[in-house]
Amino acid sequence: MQLAVLGTGMVGETIASALSARGHAVMMGSRARDNPKALAWAAGRARASTGTFADAARHGEILFNCTLGSATLEALRLAGEAALADKILVDVANPLDFSKGMPPTLTICNTDSLGEQVQRAFPRLKVVKGLNTMRCDLMVRPSLVPGDHDVLLCGNDSGAKTRVATLLHEDLGWKRQNIRDLGDITAARGTEMLLPVWLRVWGMLKHPNFNFRIVVGDAPTA
Amino acid sequence: MQLAVLGTGMVGETIASALSARGHAVMMGSRARDNPKALAWAAGRARASTGTFADAARHGEILFNCTLGSATLEALRLAGEAALADKILVDVANPLDFSKGMPPTLTICNTDSLGEQVQRAFPRLKVVKGLNTMRCDLMVRPSLVPGDHDVLLCGNDSGAKTRVATLLHEDLGWKRQNIRDLGDITAARGTEMLLPVWLRVWGMLKHPNFNFRIVVGDAPTA
Repeated sequence: MQLAVLGTGMVGETIASALSARGHAVMMGSRARDNPKALAWAAGRARASTGTFADAARHGEILFNCTLGSATLEALRLAGEAALADKILVDVANPLDFSKGMPPTLTICNTDSLGEQVQRAFPRLKVVKGLNTMRCDLMVRPSLVPGDHDVLLCGNDSGAKTRVATLLHEDLGWKRQNIRDLGDITAARGTEMLLPVWLRVWGMLKHPNFNFRIVVGDAPTA
Repeated sequence: MQLAVLGTGMVGETIASALSARGHAVMMGSRARDNPKALAWAAGRARASTGTFADAARHGEILFNCTLGSATLEALRLAGEAALADKILVDVANPLDFSKGMPPTLTICNTDSLGEQVQRAFPRLKVVKGLNTMRCDLMVRPSLVPGDHDVLLCGNDSGAKTRVATLLHEDLGWKRQNIRDLGDITAARGTEMLLPVWLRVWGMLKHPNFNFRIVVGDAPTA
């Protein structure tokens, strides 16, 4: 499949590498066509390419937004509405605010989310929020944490969520029962707001190799 | 042990009943000494009593704040600093905002939390945020959801957290390894901000009988 990753940071590189290793034709998109990190990533890698955000948006059937939350809307504007069109965008970004020091807070939360902002700015784009609740190594290799644990998806387009779930299952190794569909894109408030508790669990464990699992009992009878 | 529950709603009644059934002398506190719900709860129940918020604060070694988040600070002011003194307060409340319709949003989040507000307002009080991330039946009977799943505690006083953890284990049936200490009271931001994702999981499952589990892998070597 033709896939694209927007962003050249650690998250983008991790996802692009994993998808490329599965044989997909992955383009890494960035602001400038001669981005050295993108060129270094693509060098010697089969079916890997680089380009602008617009190039990448045109290339991919499914796009992964791995830009910083603070840069996401600008990156998508640079890609342009025509190139984005009605593509599927997996929004992996979190709206982190480092301006108040560490730990980061959120620039958007509670009554809105980055996922919703992206969907409102590009109404034709099929935004699927997902993978944003864990460290990036785990996104592409869920077996790094043993047993069942969940990846949370949401978005307005059911078909897009189904395609993303299939890719997560077939290419990244997520078990079907651990791919959870929380509903429409407004659920991105919930998954983005996991960041503060995620940071505290990291602090408790002293490492980030963990994930959340939804453990379900029987429906109450009363 | 002498324990107190502040609040006569479903959460307060559930916790008070469970602790009373374990043989503790539980006082249910409310605004007025003749609160009919509190009187009905205590009627015919061994070692159960009722009183004002101040009566309850004086009675209990450990207090459970089961008032609405919007009423918590006022309830504690009614209890009074003298009665609260350096007691342990388990803050079960969430700062829910129903004014914008359903689902509720939060009145406080991201850079502050209800738990922190309570701690700042009553500096001597040993606030332990906890139990606020699940439905109340599960708080007092974790076996309603099978297997391992977690209750998240935080607070500035280690001794207070240890006492609360012991009570959760011995009286409410929480396994030791499922009682997670996330650190100081600022972690209440994280646990209170679980509310939006909790609501979406409820919507997905169509029932509230679930909980979150932190699933941990090995520390990364790189």
